[in-house]
Amino acid sequence: MRPFKHPAVEDLTLERLFHALSDPVRLDIVRTLAATTAATCSELDGGRPKSSMSHHFRVLRDAGLVCTHHAGTTHINSLRRAELDTRWPGLMAAILGTPR
Amino acid sequence: MRPFKHPAVEDLTLERLFHALSDPVRLDIVRTLAATTAATCSELDGGRPKSSMSHHFRVLRDAGLVCTHHAGTTHINSLRRAELDTRWPGLMAAILGTPR
Repeated sequence: MRPFKHPAVEDLTLERLFHALSDPVRLDIVRTLAATTAATCSELDGGRPKSSMSHHFRVLRDAGLVCTHHAGTTHINSLRRAELDTRWPGLMAAILGTPR
Repeated sequence: MRPFKHPAVEDLTLERLFHALSDPVRLDIVRTLAATTAATCSELDGGRPKSSMSHHFRVLRDAGLVCTHHAGTTHINSLRRAELDTRWPGLMAAILGTPR
């Protein structure tokens, strides 16, 4: 399996970050990942269709929010929190600190 | 002229806020308004077509970011900063504090 593509931290843009967070499913995935170290797609899908979840995970990867890697046939996802904090200090803390 | 509609602060959602900020033109309007008290549409349009700017201002109003009122034939826009700070303390400061 080919590894997933992830943008370099210097190529991240605020517009793509905000687009990724403008959907309730994706915002929920980010909040869940922030409270853990890593999670499989099935732990994060909330029973939603696999096709729409693939799209959501791709948007999250393209925005630089989520890193996905293969572990056998499973996809393991984690938040790129340290890199996001380097790029935009304090921003993720403010976003994740807001009430749901 | 009918006044513009603005959502109540308790009806604002993070998803709509992030959608509004996911466009570089709208993010730029918000940054400009944050640095002033109020501005007319023509002061904020950067020479862009009026039709597309009407759309951007509507998205900004619907998200609760911007308040627009009539002053004769002019539209005056301001950031709803105090209300946004009440709804999501620290969030606008973190967003506006990020480098362009």
